[in-house]
Formats: sequence, C-alpha cells, structure tokens
Amino acid sequence: MADYRTPTKDLLFALRTAGMIDQISASKRYEHATYDVVEGVFEEHGRFFNEVWAPTNALGDTEGLEWSEEGVTTPESFKDAWAKYVEAGWQGMNLDPDYGGMGFPEVVYGLSAEATIGSNAALSMLPGLTTGAVELLQNWGTEEQRERYLPKMITGEWSGTMNLTEPQAGSDVGLSTTRAVPQDDGSYRITGTKIFISFGEHDLTENIIHLVLARTPDAPAGTRGISLFLVPKFLLEEDGSPGERNDVKCVSIEHKMGIHASPTCVLSFGDEGGATGWLVGEENQGLNAMFTMMNAARLAVGVQGTAIASAAYQKAVDYAGERLQGREVGSDQRGPAPIIVHPDVRRMLLEMKSYIEATRNLTTHLAASLDMSRTTEGDDSEGWDERVEILTPVAKAWCTDVGVQVTSTALQVFGGMGFIEESGVSQHFRDQRITPIYEGTNGIQAMDLVGRKLPIRGGAAFADLVAEMRRIVDELEGVEEMAASRAEIQAAFDELDTATKWIMEHGIADPRDALAGATPYLELFGLTAGAWLMARQALAAREELANGADAGKEFLEGKITTARFFCEQILPKVRSLTPAVTSGHEILYEIDAEALAST
Amino acid sequence: MADYRTPTKDLLFALRTAGMIDQISASKRYEHATYDVVEGVFEEHGRFFNEVWAPTNALGDTEGLEWSEEGVTTPESFKDAWAKYVEAGWQGMNLDPDYGGMGFPEVVYGLSAEATIGSNAALSMLPGLTTGAVELLQNWGTEEQRERYLPKMITGEWSGTMNLTEPQAGSDVGLSTTRAVPQDDGSYRITGTKIFISFGEHDLTENIIHLVLARTPDAPAGTRGISLFLVPKFLLEEDGSPGERNDVKCVSIEHKMGIHASPTCVLSFGDEGGATGWLVGEENQGLNAMFTMMNAARLAVGVQGTAIASAAYQKAVDYAGERLQGREVGSDQRGPAPIIVHPDVRRMLLEMKSYIEATRNLTTHLAASLDMSRTTEGDDSEGWDERVEILTPVAKAWCTDVGVQVTSTALQVFGGMGFIEESGVSQHFRDQRITPIYEGTNGIQAMDLVGRKLPIRGGAAFADLVAEMRRIVDELEGVEEMAASRAEIQAAFDELDTATKWIMEHGIADPRDALAGATPYLELFGLTAGAWLMARQALAAREELANGADAGKEFLEGKITTARFFCEQILPKVRSLTPAVTSGHEILYEIDAEALAST
Repeated sequence: MADYRTPTKDLLFALRTAGMIDQISASKRYEHATYDVVEGVFEEHGRFFNEVWAPTNALGDTEGLEWSEEGVTTPESFKDAWAKYVEAGWQGMNLDPDYGGMGFPEVVYGLSAEATIGSNAALSMLPGLTTGAVELLQNWGTEEQRERYLPKMITGEWSGTMNLTEPQAGSDVGLSTTRAVPQDDGSYRITGTKIFISFGEHDLTENIIHLVLARTPDAPAGTRGISLFLVPKFLLEEDGSPGERNDVKCVSIEHKMGIHASPTCVLSFGDEGGATGWLVGEENQGLNAMFTMMNAARLAVGVQGTAIASAAYQKAVDYAGERLQGREVGSDQRGPAPIIVHPDVRRMLLEMKSYIEATRNLTTHLAASLDMSRTTEGDDSEGWDERVEILTPVAKAWCTDVGVQVTSTALQVFGGMGFIEESGVSQHFRDQRITPIYEGTNGIQAMDLVGRKLPIRGGAAFADLVAEMRRIVDELEGVEEMAASRAEIQAAFDELDTATKWIMEHGIADPRDALAGATPYLELFGLTAGAWLMARQALAAREELANGADAGKEFLEGKITTARFFCEQILPKVRSLTPAVTSGHEILYEIDAEALAST
Repeated sequence: MADYRTPTKDLLFALRTAGMIDQISASKRYEHATYDVVEGVFEEHGRFFNEVWAPTNALGDTEGLEWSEEGVTTPESFKDAWAKYVEAGWQGMNLDPDYGGMGFPEVVYGLSAEATIGSNAALSMLPGLTTGAVELLQNWGTEEQRERYLPKMITGEWSGTMNLTEPQAGSDVGLSTTRAVPQDDGSYRITGTKIFISFGEHDLTENIIHLVLARTPDAPAGTRGISLFLVPKFLLEEDGSPGERNDVKCVSIEHKMGIHASPTCVLSFGDEGGATGWLVGEENQGLNAMFTMMNAARLAVGVQGTAIASAAYQKAVDYAGERLQGREVGSDQRGPAPIIVHPDVRRMLLEMKSYIEATRNLTTHLAASLDMSRTTEGDDSEGWDERVEILTPVAKAWCTDVGVQVTSTALQVFGGMGFIEESGVSQHFRDQRITPIYEGTNGIQAMDLVGRKLPIRGGAAFADLVAEMRRIVDELEGVEEMAASRAEIQAAFDELDTATKWIMEHGIADPRDALAGATPYLELFGLTAGAWLMARQALAAREELANGADAGKEFLEGKITTARFFCEQILPKVRSLTPAVTSGHEILYEIDAEALAST
C-alpha cells in the first residue's frame, strides 16, 4: 500500500467549487493559471510527492535529527528527496516570476501544499518557511536584496527562516530583546537568542537566510520598537555565492513529540561579536512586515490541519477495508467482515471525510479571497481584503482543531494497532498536535477574531460577509435533498447572529466578556462557514452531475453526502456553543487560585 | 515543583459526595471502611505515590524497555519503586482479606487508583492487571488455586496478566484459535500466540500468572467455545515456590506512542511442546469469567482517563501561574502578567477542572454502585447491579474521550513548550491516547450500551435509573445559584428521553439504526449523567458550607463553580448530539466505497 496518495481529484474539485479559479485566472496577473493548466500541474505535482517524498516520512520520524557543534544532520533519505524537489522546481509555485517563480495564485499553492505536507509534514516545513521568507522579501526587501537572495531561494537551493520567538517572548513578541546595532557600512550587528526556529540549521541547502526581529538601540519599548533584519548563515561574496560564515549558531535542537525530522533550533546570534544583518523595510516597522507574512503562514498552518488529517484518514479507510472483525449486522455472511461495514466505523469515516472537506474548502476559499483581493480594485479589493482578515484566524484555528480531532479518530479506527508506531497513523497524530500551537496559538487566533477582526469598520465588514454567506439559504430553497441541511444552516446563522451581537455589545462594556467567549465563538463561526462552503459544494456537485458528471457520478454524489452529513450531523454543534460564548467572564474568575490548582 | 500531587482532598470530597461511603461502610462486609479510616489511608497512600512513584514517571518514558531472548528489562528506577510498593502493601487495597488483602470497597480502590495512575501511568498497569487477575481467581478459581496463587499476588510479589487478544482476534474475541489440550494429570497443554499482553513479561516480580483464553479440542466455534486457563511463567514446586520455567515466551514487545515503560508483549505459548495450564472455572465458560473481570477493568480504564487528565491539568495550572506573557486586560499593571489571568486561559482551566470532576464523580458513583450491589439484597441488589451494567460502558468511554480532550487542552496551555517532551505534559498526552482503545474500544462500549444495556428488562432498568437521576431537577428547585444549571439539566433529560425513545423504537426495526447513533448517544448520556453528579456535588458542597465548611470555604465554593460551569457551559453539548443519534444508518451507506476512500 502506498504511504500517501495525494487526493488530486479532491483538490481539483475544491479548486473548481471553492477556489474561484475561473474568476482568478480571468485576471491579467494570473491569466496563465487556467483550470486546465493547473490540472496538469497538480497531476504531476501529486505524483512527485507520492513517489519521492512519501516514502521518507516514516524514516524521518524514526531516524530523527542529529545535532553537533557543526550543525544539524537531517535523515539520510531527505537529501535525495530535497535534491529532486529542487530539480523539479516545485519551490517556485506561487512565487514571483521575475525571480524564477511560477507565479501561480495562492489558491493553487494552498491546495498543492496538501501534497507537500501530507507526504511528509516534517520536511514540508522547509519549503513552507522558505516561501514565507521569499514573500516577505518580495514585499519588503530592497531591489538589491531581492536580486541577491530571491533567485536561489525560489529554486530551493537556499532556504529561509522566521526568527520571532525568544525564551521570554512567545505570543507576546513585544518582549523581544534581541539587539541590532547599526554599523558604518549600513549593516547591523545582531546579538541575541531565538528559540523554536524551524529549520534554523540543517544540511539540505547551501545557505540559510534568517529573517530576524530585533531592536535598534533607540527603539521604543514593545511592539512598536521592533525591526526586521536579513541575516544569512553565509555572507555573500561579491558574485553572490555563499562565503564567510556569519556569527549565528544553532546551540541546540528540541526533543519534540512530533515532526521529529524538522529541526527546531535555538539560534544564538553574535556569540563572537555580532552577526551581520541588513534592515528589511524601515526601522521599527518589523512587525508590519512580519504580519504580511503571518497571514500567509496562518493560512498555511490551516492547510496543514487538513493535509495531515487527510493522510491519517487514508490510512484509516484502508485499514477499515482490510481488517476483518465482527459480523455484518443484517447480513447472512457468517465469516468476519471488514470493519468498514460496521455502522460505528462508517460514522467515524464519514465524519472525518466531511470535516476534511469542510476545512479544505475554508482554506481554499480564504486563499482564493487573497487572490481576488490582489486582482480586483477599489471597493471590491477592499471587500476581499476584509474577508481575508476575518477568515484567517478562523482558518488557522478551526482547521487545526478539527485536524487534531480527525487525526485522533483515524487512530481510533485502528484499535490497538493505532497506538503502535508501526501503523504510521500515530506519527500523524503526534505531528498534527503542533498545528493548534504554532503561528499563534488557537487562543490567540480567537482573540484576534474577536478583538481585531469583528470591529473592522465597526462590525460592518463582518456583517457584509455573513450577509453574503447567508444567501446560501435562498440558494438551497427547493433543493429537496438539502432541505434538512438548509434548516440547520438557517438555525446556525441565527445562532451566529445572537452570539455576534452579544460579543459586540458586551465587548465594548468589558473586553473580558468578549475574550471569555472568544474560543467557542471562533468554533461557532468556523462550523457555520464550513457549512456554508459544504452547501456550496453540494450545489456545485449537483451542477456537475447535471452537466455530464465528468468527475464521476459516485465521486460527485459522495460530495453531496458529505455536505449533508456535515450540515445535518456536525453543524448542530453550534447550538451548544452560544451558552459558552454569552456567559461572560465572571464565572471564570470567581474561583480562587488555590481552589483552581486542586484536582 | 513536584512531578505529581495526588489530589487527596478532591478524592475525599468525591468519596463523601458521590461515593456513598457512609452507606457502604454501614454494611457488615465493609464496616472497617469508615470515612475516617479511609481518610487516613488516602493521606498515606497519596504521599507514597507522590514521593516514590512520581519521580520515576518521566524516567520510564525516556528510558523505556529492553527486550532480549531472556526477557524484558524495565527502567532501573522501577525496581525500587516496585519493591517499596510491595513492602508498603498497597497491592491489597480491595482484595480478599482471607488471602492477605485489605478488603476495602471498590469505591475506595477506584479513587485510590488515581494516585497510582497519575504518578506513573505505565507502571500502574502492573498492579492494575494483577488486581484484575486476583479478582478473577477470587471468583472463579478453585480453593487450591486461590491458596497457591493469591497470597503472593496480593502482596505484589507475583503479578498477573490477561491474555485475550490474538492477531486475528481483537474486539472479536470469538475468533481466538489458541488451543488447550487436556492431559492425564488434569492439566492442559496450551499452544498459540497472544498479542498486546501488558506486562506479559518483565523483571519486577518473581513470577507472572497468565490468565489465558483458549479452546479445548471439541469446543464449539465462536465465543461459546472459549475456556480460561491459568498459566504461570514458573510452575510451582510442591512448597509453592516458583520452580521450572513454563513453555511461554515473550517473543517481542511493541514500540508504542505512549506508556513506554509498560511492556506490551507478544507471548508465544508452547513453542517447545506446550505450556502447562490449569482450567479456571468450567470448560467453555471462559468468557463469563473474563466478563466479571472486564467490568472492573473498564471501570479502571475510566479512572485512567481522569487520573492522567488530572496529572496533566496540574502541570498546566502550574505553568499558567508562572508563565509571564501579555498584559492583564482591565488592569493598570504594565509588566507582563502570568497567563492564568487571561480569560481564554482561564476558560481552558475551568473547563478541564469541571470535566475532571465530572468524570471522577461518574467512576466513583459506578464503583460505589458495585459495592452497593454487593452489600444489599434482593431487588435492591439487582437494581444496583443493573446500574453497574448500564454505567460501565459509559464510564469507560466517556471518561476516556474526555480524558484525551482534557489532556490535549492541558498541552495547549503550554503553547510551544507543550510540544517539547521536556515539559512532561506531552507524555501525558501520549499515554492518555490508549485509554479510548483498550479494554474494548469506545465504539464497542457504545454498541454495548445500546445493544445490550438499554434492552435490560425491556428498557425498564434504564428508565428506572434515568427517573432517579431526573429527581435532581426537583432537588435543585429554589436553589438560586443553580437556576441556570437546573434549566440546562432539565433540557438535557428531555434530549436524552427523545434520543432513547428513538433508539429503542428504531433499533428493533433495524439494529443498524441504533448502532449508527450509538457513539453520539453514549456521549449524550455521559454528559447528562455527569451533570447529574455535578449538581449533586454542588448541593453537597452547599451543605458542607452550611455545616462549618471543614474542607475550606474556597475549596467548597470552587466545587459549586465547576458544577455550574459544567451544567451551564459544557452540558449544552447534548443539544448538538440528538440529530446524529436520530439520523439512522442510511446516510452512512449511501456513499460508495471508492468515493469514501478519496480525500
């Protein structure tokens, strides 16, 4: 059995139905990204990761990494997997064609990333972070920086990192103390310690381009005094080739529960006098630059939620089809049946599949909205921008919380074998658990949604989006097989309205009331948005069925079933969340600290 | 900071309020188990595990086990921890005083097990399984078997195992093929392979007493042809001391995601002609014997759910009190605050604490019901028996599903540090994940509830229990601070009635309809039973507050707060489950196998 099969057919379906690909490729910027072109790319791309990366996934998990003073040694099989990736040129998917990228829209990149992540989540951190670093330099770097660094990063010969976290500064990045002192030649001396730096040191690329947050000597305190610096592992020679080693060192790597083959580094800058760095963007504007990148990174983590869940699901559905145990109820077969026939196993599978499609639709719609914001103008563009702002924390948090749940269910399908590492599904479970944490914990996302996104244009941006989503209720009118779904969707929007109104009103009087309900509110919104997109999926599948069913009758009918299952059986969870959203903060504080600590 | 603190005060509170200890110790059988006596025992017991076992937990996880042809080597620190445990005599807590046990009721044993498990979940498997084996021999062994084996097992000098699973026979134990051929001397020759045998081989005790399911030559097929055998690792000499090595061998151990220091063995019986075993109970009655033990084992796994969650919670609440990050909303403090002040973190903590108390109350009430069934007669006893039958699958499945969720939330509180093994919380997360699987997967429990337990006395047993539970609604009348809780509880019972009625009616026409909704139905019942016990907790705490508040005002008020939080903010989840319970099986089967496999 294959280690992983990129779900290319499902990715293409999402691209057609949630990805707005025809609208996006109607623009000048993305005119080369027609559906047909992308279809061809996806087929080749999926095959590559199935064949080249997937077989290295379990090896990376068991072999892990080796740290020494000289650096970090990655698993042996990764060298070849990475070399072939560079050779194939996949790194450039969504990157600037002026520097060698393919310039595909974000929606194409986002969907393609499922293959990268699903085939090897640990290794996929390397291209993922490099893409983030490239996007940041594309937007904020000087012409010279772009010319010197981007071409090699876009081929994947060099990689990139993001250096935000310090021991005392995690979610609270304003507490950073890394220093950057300007030099006469225009460079800066960087000193400080950064932690949790993924692929901060490794042996897969010729150079590593660190993007580092630090403070200049006169910078104001807090987040307004943070600047961004480019600090290469090897300083470049005149001709652009890597030369002298910079004063940045990986002093240790973390021993983690999952993504074992992704080095999580402690980087020490300036142990021997200071690393040489160059300012990216303007002084004290570092967080603005990081935020551009962070939206993309949060979307990417949402995709991880789906991709790892999908990889685990594949294993579960295969196992359920092979494992013989118990009789089939209502059948006269006497021998043991594959467990896939049992209603309870079937429920697990359908729940997983529905969740995977819903989260995929959400990140796909978000990525497409980003593309729309870039290819439209004026009010239109602003509307798409607002949508991106609102959906980003939801996609990051909801898709990863769901991802953990789905991966856990996949493990459960295996019974005792799921707990044995040999089954492979436990690796997905361990790998997945980081996604609700990094790029801003899911609690931070919930606070972002409630504290920063709901208030955009006094709440009007949110109201506009919800009004558009709610139109699905009209579109479903008269569609008989969706009648029960429609009723649940309508009820969900009512719950959402109640919850939103409560948060807006109470949050003004006491922000703690809004923050106390932020996490259940985000889930409520995630489920409702998921149902909206699943209903659209069902309508799109119906249309394709009516128009010749090129994707296959069973495939398309399956998409309607999962949409119905999601709306009828998963979406009702919204009913249970409003009480938690609207309960206020007081009950959380009435318990005294000592009493809280017991149990 | 301590590795683990047994929550003795909370355990004693549960014993007083959910554990019916006064009723139980009013019986002749348990007259020595008064609350005051148990209080003294718990204090000593908790201290022992905090001091002796807890420091070995992380060591066991990292050191793991070593297998060789000669056997399994456990972590170095376990030798001392086990020797001291035997010396202290804790193994005998609930076991027969005639053979050296302390003869405490199951409710005392169940609560005490939180210390054993919370301090070291992997090592706790050894006494847990030994207790199960002893109980089985107490009930089904011959007088001679009891006299020869029990005294050493009750001290913990020897241990016991349960051998059910074979590669082709997991949930479906009727597929077992291990053979037992009678010999002239009254013994049997056992041949076959058993897998997933916890502590099937190890170096902590002088002898290991395997209890093994096998088929005699003329046994009927399926579960009705299974007998139970006692197969010691070392055959006993005339004087009862371990002598010749029996023909049973550990051929390998599993590489698992968690409980690394608990050897999960493949045992091969009879590689050199046959292991010598003796029949326990009657031929072909093996499953009956196993079922006695299985109820206790399922209760014990429910306790694991709570215990591991509680251990993880302690780490989270400590971390939240120390980690400085972000400003306190609504405060004029400028410096970073401990994250415990943030509403979202507070929500996580209160949700965890409420869930832990609810699951603890449920296993406590179940264990106490078992004691009541043993100390009452006639209809009373039968009523308690029925309650045990009904609550057992719920306690096993709901407490472990909740346990996984709580442990995951505890990890989330740590942010990035939670994913680093050094934090210790990730070990709990990995250890916990086995609990929804073993002793019958939670799907099996749900099917047991719906297929075997609901139909007891044509549904009357279930109706009687629910009617008694529902009386809490009257008891809460007029209790102002519980008014919102009361409304939610009333609504939950209405949901439960609707769901139960649907299952009973539709399950008769087509069992697949009942089975399709079994898992959400079990959760619905678990939440409702949890709320019932949490409401009782609140009333009990109010009473203690009125009667002098010996346990401390803040402690008792905290118990009311968690009860309210559970009823007001967690219990509403029941609203979301009825649609899934009552949707029938058809939607699960309308999707075709190939379409199901994609994604």
